[in-house]
Amino acid sequence: MKSLKHDKEHHNHSKNHNPDIQLRVKKIKGQIGGIEKMIEENRYCIDILTQISAARSALDSLAIKLLEQHSQTCLVEDIKSGKEDEAIKELMGTLKRFLQI
Amino acid sequence: MKSLKHDKEHHNHSKNHNPDIQLRVKKIKGQIGGIEKMIEENRYCIDILTQISAARSALDSLAIKLLEQHSQTCLVEDIKSGKEDEAIKELMGTLKRFLQI
Amino acid sequence: MKSLKHDKEHHNHSKNHNPDIQLRVKKIKGQIGGIEKMIEENRYCIDILTQISAARSALDSLAIKLLEQHSQTCLVEDIKSGKEDEAIKELMGTLKRFLQI
Amino acid sequence: MKSLKHDKEHHNHSKNHNPDIQLRVKKIKGQIGGIEKMIEENRYCIDILTQISAARSALDSLAIKLLEQHSQTCLVEDIKSGKEDEAIKELMGTLKRFLQI
Repeated sequence: MKSLKHDKEHHNHSKNHNPDIQLRVKKIKGQIGGIEKMIEENRYCIDILTQISAARSALDSLAIKLLEQHSQTCLVEDIKSGKEDEAIKELMGTLKRFLQI
Repeated sequence: MKSLKHDKEHHNHSKNHNPDIQLRVKKIKGQIGGIEKMIEENRYCIDILTQISAARSALDSLAIKLLEQHSQTCLVEDIKSGKEDEAIKELMGTLKRFLQI
Repeated sequence: MKSLKHDKEHHNHSKNHNPDIQLRVKKIKGQIGGIEKMIEENRYCIDILTQISAARSALDSLAIKLLEQHSQTCLVEDIKSGKEDEAIKELMGTLKRFLQI
Repeated sequence: MKSLKHDKEHHNHSKNHNPDIQLRVKKIKGQIGGIEKMIEENRYCIDILTQISAARSALDSLAIKLLEQHSQTCLVEDIKSGKEDEAIKELMGTLKRFLQI
């Protein structure tokens, strides 16, 4: 079973990763910077942990947005062109890594 | 039930957040920066999602390290000085936020 | 956007939920029964929590197996018959509920 | 560092696992039984996955309740009797297993 990655790297995605996704990752970078500062300033652990929970939720939402975009473009295209086995195997591998299974 | 935060902000922690914790948050900031770059470069979604899973695991490990440090210092101190109800309530609230309950 | 559920309930799945999936859910039922017994016997909390972690991981693995089967059958069929928007929306809704987003 | 489990198994907990906890685990057993039935009846995957998400959330809530009870009894007792290192190490090990770290 051939990897689908090579194909994708060499074709033009019909859509770029959208501005919403770029905004989300910028916001998460800001959140992590804030956590770094709280740690440097020796702030109360519980407050830092609250910010870590927020950053983790934001990462989850970013992941879902990317998965949605991937499904609407690459996955649909792969399934329509008969590469469904590889495409679904790849998607499940991604979900397993995410759920740490 | 009074919040424990106010007390903590005004006493000197016996230990600062340790270098291991500072190193971890710096590494996570680097990971998020890498994810941002991959998104800007319109890289393959599945590869970006793999990096997001890694950053999420690193955030979880950072949270556990902070919880451990919090327990070894503030929690022990609070319990020994009879503030166990507030301290445990605060800890459980933190875990709930983390598990999104 | 019409729900895909109604269609599915009235067509014969090409594949039944496979024996592996039935075995997994039976095993989880046994795990929960074991946890119930440990609680009744007033066993040590930490040991009960270890069993809860194991049951939670087993539920995650079952969910991935079902998602895989769903993708290989219903999702592929929906995408090939032009119902990709509904099918992907439904899949993402499922993942969001799972990740508690 | 000696395990704390042996001690606990041979002392009378000041509190039994409370009725709320027993009720929760019974409810989860019912949820898993319902999922088993849905699988046997070959119900729509997405509906089964929704029920799995609910059971997973209920397991998380049960775990938090047990952790709370453990903290209020065993953890406080261990810390007050100078076994704080073992008690915190044990608690962190439990959280790591739970978060699959």
